Amino acid sequence: MPEFEVTPWEVTGVVDYNKLIEEFGTTPLTDDLLKKTEELTKKELPMYFKRKFFFSHRDYDLVLKDYEAGKGFFLYTGRGPSGPMHIGHIIPFFATKWLQENFGVNLYVQITDDEKFLFKPQLTFEGTKRWAYENILDIIAVGFDPDKTFIFQDSEFTKIYEMAIPIAKKVTYSMAKAVFGFNEQSKIGMIFFPAIQAAPTFFEEKRSLIPAAIDQDPYWRIQRDFAESLGYYKTAALHSKFVPGLMGLGGKMSASKPETAIYLTDDPEEAGKKIWKYALTGGRATAKEQRELGGEPDKCVVFKWLEIFFEPDEKKLLERYIACKNGEILCGQCKRYLIEKVQNFLKEHQEKREKAKKEIEKFKYTGDLAREQWDKAIPEPLRK
Amino acid sequence: MPEFEVTPWEVTGVVDYNKLIEEFGTTPLTDDLLKKTEELTKKELPMYFKRKFFFSHRDYDLVLKDYEAGKGFFLYTGRGPSGPMHIGHIIPFFATKWLQENFGVNLYVQITDDEKFLFKPQLTFEGTKRWAYENILDIIAVGFDPDKTFIFQDSEFTKIYEMAIPIAKKVTYSMAKAVFGFNEQSKIGMIFFPAIQAAPTFFEEKRSLIPAAIDQDPYWRIQRDFAESLGYYKTAALHSKFVPGLMGLGGKMSASKPETAIYLTDDPEEAGKKIWKYALTGGRATAKEQRELGGEPDKCVVFKWLEIFFEPDEKKLLERYIACKNGEILCGQCKRYLIEKVQNFLKEHQEKREKAKKEIEKFKYTGDLAREQWDKAIPEPLRK
Repeated sequence: MPEFEVTPWEVTGVVDYNKLIEEFGTTPLTDDLLKKTEELTKKELPMYFKRKFFFSHRDYDLVLKDYEAGKGFFLYTGRGPSGPMHIGHIIPFFATKWLQENFGVNLYVQITDDEKFLFKPQLTFEGTKRWAYENILDIIAVGFDPDKTFIFQDSEFTKIYEMAIPIAKKVTYSMAKAVFGFNEQSKIGMIFFPAIQAAPTFFEEKRSLIPAAIDQDPYWRIQRDFAESLGYYKTAALHSKFVPGLMGLGGKMSASKPETAIYLTDDPEEAGKKIWKYALTGGRATAKEQRELGGEPDKCVVFKWLEIFFEPDEKKLLERYIACKNGEILCGQCKRYLIEKVQNFLKEHQEKREKAKKEIEKFKYTGDLAREQWDKAIPEPLRK
Repeated sequence: MPEFEVTPWEVTGVVDYNKLIEEFGTTPLTDDLLKKTEELTKKELPMYFKRKFFFSHRDYDLVLKDYEAGKGFFLYTGRGPSGPMHIGHIIPFFATKWLQENFGVNLYVQITDDEKFLFKPQLTFEGTKRWAYENILDIIAVGFDPDKTFIFQDSEFTKIYEMAIPIAKKVTYSMAKAVFGFNEQSKIGMIFFPAIQAAPTFFEEKRSLIPAAIDQDPYWRIQRDFAESLGYYKTAALHSKFVPGLMGLGGKMSASKPETAIYLTDDPEEAGKKIWKYALTGGRATAKEQRELGGEPDKCVVFKWLEIFFEPDEKKLLERYIACKNGEILCGQCKRYLIEKVQNFLKEHQEKREKAKKEIEKFKYTGDLAREQWDKAIPEPLRK
């Protein structure tokens, strides 16, 4: 049995990210590329990049070259709306927001309600559309530019179907089967879906950059196989590591194990209790032992969450690491610190989420970028 | 080798239509049903029905019952735009027009530019879209009601994608393979297409009636398998025989053999020459022999064309049949008669086709039915 396994459907074990780079054939995100990012944006890098939460890429070097040459690029990411979003889902959106803000580029967010309905036997179409609405609120709450961001649901912005057709003429059943593991019982909608997912990489005649967890990479390999034959760019990607669930560093935070996840709509009080009860730490058996031997922050989910998202302050993070190693702080202290951070985040997020209800129309239909895309989709005699 | 074979892709041999009814498991279009049609419409039946050019059906009896009970029904038909339309393509549209006019029902015409692009390796998307425009002119020229007819191209009225999704969740690769003959090398767009073709049967919450040549029947079998599980009606169908090409009664008029077909855009002069040169008749070796033995109208393409479309007058058709049998007329006379009929038809059609250019917008976007459908497809904030 392998120590860890990463597919678009499942992540198990404690992932060795260097091995993964080799296995997937991607490229490490080097310090040079990060420095270049800093130079071009004239901004200090956010923790997601500085701490190598994003650790791997495809063609990000070319994205930066295109940007430098004035050709520009655009961002593309997405969400499959089959349930509430948790902290693991939203973190890549914050990284994406930083990229949009500091490169000043357009962002397309595909809400794949078609995919989730097709792939989840028990989910109704109405059900996934309701989740789409809920998830869009969370995404808007991150704070994207409403005139440079187009959030679209596949079931609604069906122009995506027309764009998928030339792609669907390039991909054989055999190719799709190899990448996505289809079989005789797969529904024909599932088999077609890879074309729908690749289509947004053609929204502009520029290179698209997809920031997402590395398990999503296989979805883009097909795109990179045929893109140039259709006169488009191979998509670029920035790959993140996984946000672990509360109960262990292995795998990733999973909606199917609710006790390991903090949902964006969780009551902050309840979220605190969940962390207190379930969060795995790198602590020793007793307080005495911990003071003598020191803690193990590298094995600690609490520390990992601080590192990934909840402690943006570099100095404080390092101090905490050392204090733990030296046995100067106990797990309870760290848990309480994380709980406060998470609760503040949730409160703030939930307020923004409430305000997002008024912004949906702009992101989906009437903002500059949304309008531009809909104008391509609606025949002229029917346009407002 | 079978004497004849009928699949959605090919028709070979002289078809035994009674055998076909058995083979396909359809129902003969009885005199009772035709009488009922006459009663309900209070109209004399057109030649297509009277002469049993439409000879078979599925659930047409239920369509008439629904109509009688005030539930109504709607018509659905289509065209795959991969080239110019010929006489064989347009005749079912005339029968459809009669049904629309005399039952006063809505008609949806699906122009499957997606299908043709996907299935024809050498066709470009632009190419099939251009054919869509040309074919739509021919269809409009038939004289449908612009407020009760919605002509839509799949690549443009992409709402069809959303409607296809629940269907595409019902159909497995294995089912699609069995009906359509897909294999490992089939493109994923082809595999999905059956869902797109079935979607218009759900445009209204009434029974849909599809008038089409019987070789298209397999496409609807899948629809009839899952329709009720999605809360819709199994589609009904009226099946026509094939319009033979000029050179023989076997097979059907085919765009791939241009010398056997009369195109709707053919110059009438040239069309006449083609008929004169290529039309197979039931004539004898010599005029003398023919006067003695009589001709064989049942083996004659010229007579068949008169019967199917070009001689609406029952009495005249019968007289010609008898005169031929009795050796009283020669093939040249019949050919000249048909040529005149075809030329008149082409001239009239081509005039109407020219006028259709000004009507396209109404059929596709702004007529009552088109507008109603687009309103469902365009989000409210973007609607005119």
